[in-house]
Amino acid sequence: MRGEHIAIGSEILLGQILNAHARTVSLAFAEQGFFLYYHTAVGDNLDRIANLLRQAGKRSNVIVITGGLGPTEDDLTREAVAQVLGRELHLVPDAVAEIERFFAGRGRPMPEVNRKQAMLIDGGEFLPNPNGTAPGQYVESEGVHYFLLPGPPLEMKPMLDNYVVLRLKQLLPNSSVLVSRTLHFCGIGESTVNEEVIDLLALQNPTVAPLASEGEMLLRITASAATAESAQELIAPLEKQLREQFPKYIYGVDSDSLPSVVGDALRARGATLSAAESCTGGLLSSMITAIPGASQYFFGGVVSYDNSVKSSVLGVSEETLKEHGAVSEEAAREMALGVRSACGTTFGVSITGIAGPGGGTAEKPVGLVYIGLADSDGCDVYRLQLRGSREQIRLRAAKQLLWRLWTKLNH
Amino acid sequence: MRGEHIAIGSEILLGQILNAHARTVSLAFAEQGFFLYYHTAVGDNLDRIANLLRQAGKRSNVIVITGGLGPTEDDLTREAVAQVLGRELHLVPDAVAEIERFFAGRGRPMPEVNRKQAMLIDGGEFLPNPNGTAPGQYVESEGVHYFLLPGPPLEMKPMLDNYVVLRLKQLLPNSSVLVSRTLHFCGIGESTVNEEVIDLLALQNPTVAPLASEGEMLLRITASAATAESAQELIAPLEKQLREQFPKYIYGVDSDSLPSVVGDALRARGATLSAAESCTGGLLSSMITAIPGASQYFFGGVVSYDNSVKSSVLGVSEETLKEHGAVSEEAAREMALGVRSACGTTFGVSITGIAGPGGGTAEKPVGLVYIGLADSDGCDVYRLQLRGSREQIRLRAAKQLLWRLWTKLNH
Repeated sequence: MRGEHIAIGSEILLGQILNAHARTVSLAFAEQGFFLYYHTAVGDNLDRIANLLRQAGKRSNVIVITGGLGPTEDDLTREAVAQVLGRELHLVPDAVAEIERFFAGRGRPMPEVNRKQAMLIDGGEFLPNPNGTAPGQYVESEGVHYFLLPGPPLEMKPMLDNYVVLRLKQLLPNSSVLVSRTLHFCGIGESTVNEEVIDLLALQNPTVAPLASEGEMLLRITASAATAESAQELIAPLEKQLREQFPKYIYGVDSDSLPSVVGDALRARGATLSAAESCTGGLLSSMITAIPGASQYFFGGVVSYDNSVKSSVLGVSEETLKEHGAVSEEAAREMALGVRSACGTTFGVSITGIAGPGGGTAEKPVGLVYIGLADSDGCDVYRLQLRGSREQIRLRAAKQLLWRLWTKLNH
Repeated sequence: MRGEHIAIGSEILLGQILNAHARTVSLAFAEQGFFLYYHTAVGDNLDRIANLLRQAGKRSNVIVITGGLGPTEDDLTREAVAQVLGRELHLVPDAVAEIERFFAGRGRPMPEVNRKQAMLIDGGEFLPNPNGTAPGQYVESEGVHYFLLPGPPLEMKPMLDNYVVLRLKQLLPNSSVLVSRTLHFCGIGESTVNEEVIDLLALQNPTVAPLASEGEMLLRITASAATAESAQELIAPLEKQLREQFPKYIYGVDSDSLPSVVGDALRARGATLSAAESCTGGLLSSMITAIPGASQYFFGGVVSYDNSVKSSVLGVSEETLKEHGAVSEEAAREMALGVRSACGTTFGVSITGIAGPGGGTAEKPVGLVYIGLADSDGCDVYRLQLRGSREQIRLRAAKQLLWRLWTKLNH
């Protein structure tokens, strides 16, 4: 198969929206072992769309087109494909009825312009759209398979998964399967990992690709084989080798995240957590509570942005704040112990630092962060010097804390 | 000018990374009144890159290429452009010295492979890269201007802004200027706004484009004129009309955000804020403290995820929790009053609700959220029924609260 994706819409070329569909289609295809060779975006112009389709029809045999199926005059995808294939469009009464039902469900009559969405390319077939008014279309011509999908993501994605990918598997049943497994690293520099795995990056099957992420890094292992099982057999020994090479730093796989693995570890021990945050201002708590079911182990926290809150709510001593300052090992310790005691949890954690861009001094520069981990044995405090923007420093501080907590829970 | 952008890199076609550069280049061009007609992404394959460049050279006269300038064998952009233009590459000793200096600054010798990055297309010129090892290149052939930029965003973006855009303004000085102004709406449905402005969406200059966003919406007004001033004169009456049409819902423009306008309003009044969060779990505080200087008005907050924290830290009565439950008007009121009192601030706000996916009942379904706004006069509580995923409900709840607070501060 030689596939490609074409996004239709002047708003993409104007930079008003990101062409995220290109990635969505690539990922859905790659999971099935299908590859795209081109992504293209083109504006709402009949000649340019048609020219592009002619080129695409010469170099590819599967063409996924997103956008341009709306009811307005700017929506030209149907017309362009029909023109390039030398076919006509015809109105399908059942499709009109379907669109009328969609509007009736919202208590409105169907505007006349929407009839256009019931025009099908001769020889094509409609793809149902339960989430909107624009049905998709599938048409084949001279061995090239065209899939026309609507632009809104909540309409496009289900059609891609439920229809396009399934149809491709029927059309091209002998394709091999591509399986990926992504290992998540934290607490170790990206360049250090890259240098230690440089030989693996040259492998052909499975392949190993480093992916940078904020405050952590990912290694994606991808294997191609006849079945998912044999692809997994290619991945397993490589994963084992990497886990032996980096025993402390691989905290999870695939959809795991630092908050999810910390949550799993807390739940497994029947332990509970509370958090006191200064420079991260609620970000750590927000990341922890983004996981469904976090209420089982996360009792709550205190955002002690002003020193008065550090004293009144967390019980950090005035003396500590005066002598050492709010960004200090002592303050981090008292915050972690204070929030643990106030919330009555197994663990209490704290973050205090200078996220910038203002507020730094020679002695305490922007990026200086102390994190504290308190339990019944006392409190460990770590000093970090982080780089980056305010946003990066906040995120990296929260991730470093979660990684330290995960390490404490697992080793 | 007929411009286009080509992104080089198999990782884009595999869906491993989003092709965000396409949008970045489009936006930088649009600000100067230059338009792109195509975005294309192609993998690290010399033939495919060269074929694409041949097509691009026929249809466009400005081609911006990002990626493929690294030191590895997969980095083929230089070679592909040279091949298509029928030119050779030659080593530039000054560029080697520059790359050596970059490595020396990091205490390392230059690896031999990086010499490749000092290879310049005959007749071309290097574009300096202070942020990395890969210089960019500019070369012109038969009226087509090629700009080769490195892939890493922190290297690409400054080169685009400092070099490519400036050079285009020199090459094509008669272009008109495009100016945009984006109005931010909250508290009103996207479809309501769209219906009320439907006539404006057909305007040609300025144009009006609705942009959906999570929990709010944007209207972007764009005008083209000979100078920035005359473009602004086209935008001003339209903005005035929209502000009269939606006096309560337009909270900001351009880079404004709900947390930033709330912060500005609090600062202007010398007022302070604290927040008690249940279902948002720190997200509201995190959004407020993402703004530099938030410590001037935000004293802190309490994430009262577990009921014990609502009682012990915020003083919500056991009776309220037993009779009405944690997700209730009464609990929201006591949380807002409690955090205001605990932190000693002008305003205290609260959010309590059911973010899902679990935890909903027939009486209190997922998406039910109460928000409270307390000041010295007492506490207003609003009941919301939000739709969407856990992530969307949390974000929409936080934005609704900020919008209510902004309304209170400004009307």
